[in-house]
Amino acid sequence: MRTIGALAFPRFEALDMFGPVEMFGLLEDEFAIRMVGESEAAVACSQGPTMVPDRTFHDPVDYDLVLVPGGIGTRSAVENAPLLDWLGRASAAAEVTMSVCTGSGVLAKAGLLDGKRATSNKLSYDWARSQGPKADWVPQARWVEDGNVFTSSGVSAGMDMSLAVIARLCGADTARQVAVWAEYDWHDDPDWDPFAEIHGLV
Amino acid sequence: MRTIGALAFPRFEALDMFGPVEMFGLLEDEFAIRMVGESEAAVACSQGPTMVPDRTFHDPVDYDLVLVPGGIGTRSAVENAPLLDWLGRASAAAEVTMSVCTGSGVLAKAGLLDGKRATSNKLSYDWARSQGPKADWVPQARWVEDGNVFTSSGVSAGMDMSLAVIARLCGADTARQVAVWAEYDWHDDPDWDPFAEIHGLV
Repeated sequence: MRTIGALAFPRFEALDMFGPVEMFGLLEDEFAIRMVGESEAAVACSQGPTMVPDRTFHDPVDYDLVLVPGGIGTRSAVENAPLLDWLGRASAAAEVTMSVCTGSGVLAKAGLLDGKRATSNKLSYDWARSQGPKADWVPQARWVEDGNVFTSSGVSAGMDMSLAVIARLCGADTARQVAVWAEYDWHDDPDWDPFAEIHGLV
Repeated sequence: MRTIGALAFPRFEALDMFGPVEMFGLLEDEFAIRMVGESEAAVACSQGPTMVPDRTFHDPVDYDLVLVPGGIGTRSAVENAPLLDWLGRASAAAEVTMSVCTGSGVLAKAGLLDGKRATSNKLSYDWARSQGPKADWVPQARWVEDGNVFTSSGVSAGMDMSLAVIARLCGADTARQVAVWAEYDWHDDPDWDPFAEIHGLV
């Protein structure tokens, strides 16, 4: 059983968080999800609904995977020193670190993308890139895998990336089974990204 | 501005809820989302994370849209008289009633699918159907629209259905814009459903 530390900061994007939560959560014998907040206070996502953290930044960082969603709240997250400190410690202890959408801007600000290939959402691509001048940003990708760091494009891309992480950790057959359970049309090609062109990035 | 009453019962399926929440929530000037619980107590979804309801069954049912997710918690939901009572009152007052996955079993048990065409998820199709002998169940469909009731297939299908509801209420161009913002490959054909065949329903 692996645990996932999912970082819940105010105004995270709902699907960035709950797309991956769904895919990993369908393997309930393999993955346990812990929402991690700065404190025990409830956290509202960008679309309104409010979550109760399971853990805080003060708990041990014993997560096998770390998940960082995007959303407009990332603009404050990159200025939050305790958050960046937690992220650095949690990522160093984890087997895999993942971001969805502008969550890669938060990874970048924490220095976790220095020297690594990474992507982000396409609408706020320039903002994410500005947080990590030492990263090798890839404008057209559904997700990018570099060592133990996976970064995905915007919002729904987090589901495709999660299935790729499941494929690495549990095998491709298991990932395909999860997609069928979720009745999800998995884009399993990391280079599939029509949105980069729509937003003029390529 | 329309409000959405999203029914949060214990062990609802995460993506059934937050896929639609994301799509409607991206139109923050058009839709406001209210999580509705039986009481003010926090509610854990099937994948673990816990939500705080914004409203309860005792509040006025003044929602323009009603959303019922699926998940293993539907098995208890169909035995919950106050929940079925709330759902009947809320749906009667609403412009559109929606379900995702086995949420259609809950709609059926509340009598809201009598004489209507409807679908459900494919893995638990027989269970959903057993809740509504007077409904006209459609085994192969991404979603089914009958008057003011939309029912979708499993889990990820709720996003496609939500975009169809947005198209009806706000226009097809707006629905397509939301899909691009979410970097989502919208299956906009309600008859697209390869999962019915995988599960031997056709």
